[in-house]
Amino acid sequence: MTKILIDTLGSDLGAEEIIKGAGKALERHPELSVVLSGDTETIQKACSANGIPSDRTEILDAKEEITNYDSPAEVLFTKSGSSMMKGLSEVAMREDIFGMISCGNTGVLLPAAMKYLSGDIRVRPALAAVLPAENGSFTCLVDTGATIDCTPQMLHHFAHLGSDLMKEMYGVDDPKVGLLSNGAEETKGNKAVKETHILLKNDENINFVGNIEGNKALSGACDVLVCDGFAGNQVLKVTEGTAKRILTDIYKIGKRTGSTDIMNLFGQLMKIYDIGSLGGGIVLGVRKPVIKAHGNSNSEGIANITKMLLNMAENKAVFDKRDNKI
Amino acid sequence: MTKILIDTLGSDLGAEEIIKGAGKALERHPELSVVLSGDTETIQKACSANGIPSDRTEILDAKEEITNYDSPAEVLFTKSGSSMMKGLSEVAMREDIFGMISCGNTGVLLPAAMKYLSGDIRVRPALAAVLPAENGSFTCLVDTGATIDCTPQMLHHFAHLGSDLMKEMYGVDDPKVGLLSNGAEETKGNKAVKETHILLKNDENINFVGNIEGNKALSGACDVLVCDGFAGNQVLKVTEGTAKRILTDIYKIGKRTGSTDIMNLFGQLMKIYDIGSLGGGIVLGVRKPVIKAHGNSNSEGIANITKMLLNMAENKAVFDKRDNKI
Repeated sequence: MTKILIDTLGSDLGAEEIIKGAGKALERHPELSVVLSGDTETIQKACSANGIPSDRTEILDAKEEITNYDSPAEVLFTKSGSSMMKGLSEVAMREDIFGMISCGNTGVLLPAAMKYLSGDIRVRPALAAVLPAENGSFTCLVDTGATIDCTPQMLHHFAHLGSDLMKEMYGVDDPKVGLLSNGAEETKGNKAVKETHILLKNDENINFVGNIEGNKALSGACDVLVCDGFAGNQVLKVTEGTAKRILTDIYKIGKRTGSTDIMNLFGQLMKIYDIGSLGGGIVLGVRKPVIKAHGNSNSEGIANITKMLLNMAENKAVFDKRDNKI
Repeated sequence: MTKILIDTLGSDLGAEEIIKGAGKALERHPELSVVLSGDTETIQKACSANGIPSDRTEILDAKEEITNYDSPAEVLFTKSGSSMMKGLSEVAMREDIFGMISCGNTGVLLPAAMKYLSGDIRVRPALAAVLPAENGSFTCLVDTGATIDCTPQMLHHFAHLGSDLMKEMYGVDDPKVGLLSNGAEETKGNKAVKETHILLKNDENINFVGNIEGNKALSGACDVLVCDGFAGNQVLKVTEGTAKRILTDIYKIGKRTGSTDIMNLFGQLMKIYDIGSLGGGIVLGVRKPVIKAHGNSNSEGIANITKMLLNMAENKAVFDKRDNKI
């Protein structure tokens, strides 16, 4: 049995959608049990309305919600009774809980995960996204929004965290690490990127392949693409926005012309480029897996992410390798 | 008659391709005359091989080339005999030359343009790209790679430069200015972005519409999108890379299935999303228009950019409005 804690609050679609997602996951995976953090009454109602088995469902009562307008510095110590914080604390204390999923405010989730789940407070957590690359491989983008202002030391650290993830979760032998920059040449980059280039080049434990430009970000040129959270967020969202825009054009032209070929093409492309549905970000640098789901993840999204965690549990991914690295 | 200086060196495709482009432009626009900076012998040979009229072509001899491996700080004062620097100096000194086109190293072109064409050395130049937005309008992205590390004051200044360009060149009455960030909320952004948010919000001469996320960058939500050169370069290149990847998929599927509908669709989309062919970046903050063409611009690209400059000359765009703004 694998037990996963799911934060039912902080979702754009409301708690019931998240609980439904937990229900779907429980139905699909008999080896799964869940702890649902949130408002007990809401959870009980949604569980019985959706026929969710009570013997594999535990409730952690926490009525307080972390919203997108909460500032991390303010709520980190004042909202310890929230479903997110109580959830993290529970995951930290209990050995039987493997990991956690939350749709809540990323800016709060990250330092909160660090507070409860990191032994080393000097370490900055990172949020990774593992994306399908052009050549059929996967690229781990790190950071995607956890640490917005990064020092070269943090970026160096992200390279290790990303490398470990790709080794342990995706079986990549000697992950190629690239550094996102505005040009391939070593002289290109902002101040932090230029300094990071030198750190990565001189680190024998990193298979550094040099600077990678935005148009090659998801080409498969590297297995791990290192950048600060601001740039990573742009890579993720610009990719998403561009893909959505072109797919919308294709759909419109398909509808207008009534072409079956074009509508079939649309269906094929949606399977690859619907970036928004690609599961959640993986919090790196903490000692148990915490997945940040999109704020608007629906029940299917939550069920998919639960499966992702079950796979991790099976692969015995080690999430806290940093001590012997830097 | 409008006279434009074209730097024939610094191109990935060689000087002859650029000279051919000048020839095409001269053929299409009888009101155009050009100054070609570069190696006299090469230019003379290419001109006669391509039947370029000598009465509308002037040569500025400069054999030295700025390469992509040149560091701005090193060459700015040592390579003043290069085709780029001599070109800029000529544009600065001569009243009869309207503007300039160069394919050369952006990192050198920008400070060089500032050195020769800006009266105010405190002003940082910016490189703008005017891109077709989702809703049929145009979005001016500024900066796209001229100033990689930006202070909030620089970003604030870019907002004015971009606003002026959209007013004067595209007839947008009260350009909506957005600030690229990793979230719509005011609390989101890196340090510089957060401070810039406050500056823009408090500036009555700017129609500030708030933070814009990467997936909305080219939605048409704003007419001017402000960001530092590192982020702008990502927006541009990630858009380009994603579009190219999806278009390649469509082409492959079209070829494989032999579907005429899909191949027609491909042709339609190429006209919109072939970002690489979208002309050049406009250097803002200097007193005459300087266009940075892509390093791999072909003769058609050079002819298109020449037309862009002729349009500017016609619209009497004013490129040096900064003095009465900040």
